[in-house]
Amino acid sequence: MKKDFNNPFFRWENGIFITVDQTKLPFKEEYIKLSTLTDYYDAIKKLKVRGAPAIGVVACYGVLSTVFRNKNFEKARRESLKSIEKLKKARPTAVNIFNLLEKMKKIIENFDEKDYLLFRNKIEDFCEQAYNYEVYTCEKMADYGYRLIQNGMNVLTHCNTGMLATLGIGTALGIIFRAFQKGIKFHLFIPETRPLLQGGRLTVFEAEKFKIPYTLITDNTRGYLFSKNKIDITFVGADRIALNGDTANKIGTCESAILSYHFKKPFYVVAPTTTFDRNITTGDLINIEERNKEEILSVNGKKISIAKDVLNPAFDITPSKYITGIITEKGIIKPEKGCIKNIL
Amino acid sequence: MKKDFNNPFFRWENGIFITVDQTKLPFKEEYIKLSTLTDYYDAIKKLKVRGAPAIGVVACYGVLSTVFRNKNFEKARRESLKSIEKLKKARPTAVNIFNLLEKMKKIIENFDEKDYLLFRNKIEDFCEQAYNYEVYTCEKMADYGYRLIQNGMNVLTHCNTGMLATLGIGTALGIIFRAFQKGIKFHLFIPETRPLLQGGRLTVFEAEKFKIPYTLITDNTRGYLFSKNKIDITFVGADRIALNGDTANKIGTCESAILSYHFKKPFYVVAPTTTFDRNITTGDLINIEERNKEEILSVNGKKISIAKDVLNPAFDITPSKYITGIITEKGIIKPEKGCIKNIL
Repeated sequence: MKKDFNNPFFRWENGIFITVDQTKLPFKEEYIKLSTLTDYYDAIKKLKVRGAPAIGVVACYGVLSTVFRNKNFEKARRESLKSIEKLKKARPTAVNIFNLLEKMKKIIENFDEKDYLLFRNKIEDFCEQAYNYEVYTCEKMADYGYRLIQNGMNVLTHCNTGMLATLGIGTALGIIFRAFQKGIKFHLFIPETRPLLQGGRLTVFEAEKFKIPYTLITDNTRGYLFSKNKIDITFVGADRIALNGDTANKIGTCESAILSYHFKKPFYVVAPTTTFDRNITTGDLINIEERNKEEILSVNGKKISIAKDVLNPAFDITPSKYITGIITEKGIIKPEKGCIKNIL
Repeated sequence: MKKDFNNPFFRWENGIFITVDQTKLPFKEEYIKLSTLTDYYDAIKKLKVRGAPAIGVVACYGVLSTVFRNKNFEKARRESLKSIEKLKKARPTAVNIFNLLEKMKKIIENFDEKDYLLFRNKIEDFCEQAYNYEVYTCEKMADYGYRLIQNGMNVLTHCNTGMLATLGIGTALGIIFRAFQKGIKFHLFIPETRPLLQGGRLTVFEAEKFKIPYTLITDNTRGYLFSKNKIDITFVGADRIALNGDTANKIGTCESAILSYHFKKPFYVVAPTTTFDRNITTGDLINIEERNKEEILSVNGKKISIAKDVLNPAFDITPSKYITGIITEKGIIKPEKGCIKNIL
């Protein structure tokens, strides 16, 4: 874990989890202290904390905080199991939070030393491991990926995949941060990423904070930039990857991939191996969530259209043939049949 | 001019021009009456009327209204020349308004019968001709183009090119209206068209008004639809066309063209021959206007990003190799070297 470019948005201090309220970004950088179980539950449910990797780890600390506040072994054990059930209900979709809480549950159920301090240490160790593993995978991906960015390059990303979405340096944006940290001179183009504008709101916020040279564009402007030879390389995150390399990611990703393919520019997906779905052979089998049409009809609460019929898929599928490589914590994979199965 | 599908947004009645205030759309369909020269000047300057073809003709009626209010030949002649100079200053970019006002100026300067009624009739005839020519070219393009839409097709457009942007049935959207009028069953996909959302605000408004079956999407969703084989044909307008067929149109157009090319689907540009620039041989030579960054940083007056660096090109260039055909009032042109020169 490199100390000179740490994620400033999450920290655990003396039994309290401190994080930035992402619903207030980018206009206010307001830090909230999570102490009671309700604090954690609300922060996750109301999207003050977001990003699948981040909410998984934060939920674990929610259980730990319950242990901290019940300083008796039996009570701590009983209440921590209850808190797991409650936290599982905060968000329905992301897998990480369920997996981590299930692992925790087993540890608690199998713990038989009946000593409060030993119990608290065990839970705290688990949380630290989950946190560190998250930071570690980001670091590894950043180290593998940053070398692809060369002096003078123009770099394209999509959505938000940085320190606000992970507890580490980020996935796609982590590579960009690392290249910057290494002194490579490049320019980042940030598409605003409609409908929820995570690019315009959050990635711009991170770029400003860490002084990355960037330009904000509408999603509509990518073709213009590619055709003016202004994009040299693209890095995006992933929500789920099929075994053949087909990648589900934020809506609009496959357009960047097709433009890259068309203009013969490299296009990289950046994701830890936990994003691969071992049960899915090709992207056709990935179910795409359709979200509320209000996300399109309004921007920041301001109504912009009277449309009655609206289509709002949250993700699209980028076929592996458009993907130059998938950058994981285990190395860069060329997405060809079978090669992903070998690395898992 | 077909009576059953007329443009309801513009009419000239008893010396007054009645039009919908486009700054209030889509939430209010409010009609304003243009009577004094200031009414016309403000309507054009404040974008209550927009679309290069529409503002050209409306400006002519502004001159006519001056003639109507000065019922003495010498005074009418003097004031109408003054009104031309004033109206030329309303908008700096569009060419149509300058060309039409210059033509009018010559007619006024050369008019030597010194009779008020003859003078008024001459000016009124000119306005009617300009109006009718605009309606006529839209009708011809619609008639040539609608046959390309077949039952069951999914149709993509971009921005707003309908009855709000022209005085007739529209350019790209005019073809779609005509197909609907002819009973062809199709479905229209309308990208919202950031930054100014003319798709989400105005094209959706027109589709609702005329009961065209449509779905609103973000600009980011086009790749998703193409990859699901949900787009069969695309029609867009044009702001300027080079002699080799390269087309400048609203930002985001070239992405639809590249997606069409990639997925082997037809992509048509719809524009009257007055849109061709005889002085420009290829699209590289078309100068692209960069607009105010506030258009990207805010939506309907609501701030959405803190970005300091923003790129906001108003147009992009679609190379002719991606264009299946250009639909003009003189027929459908295959954009190949020299073929456009022949039709002009």
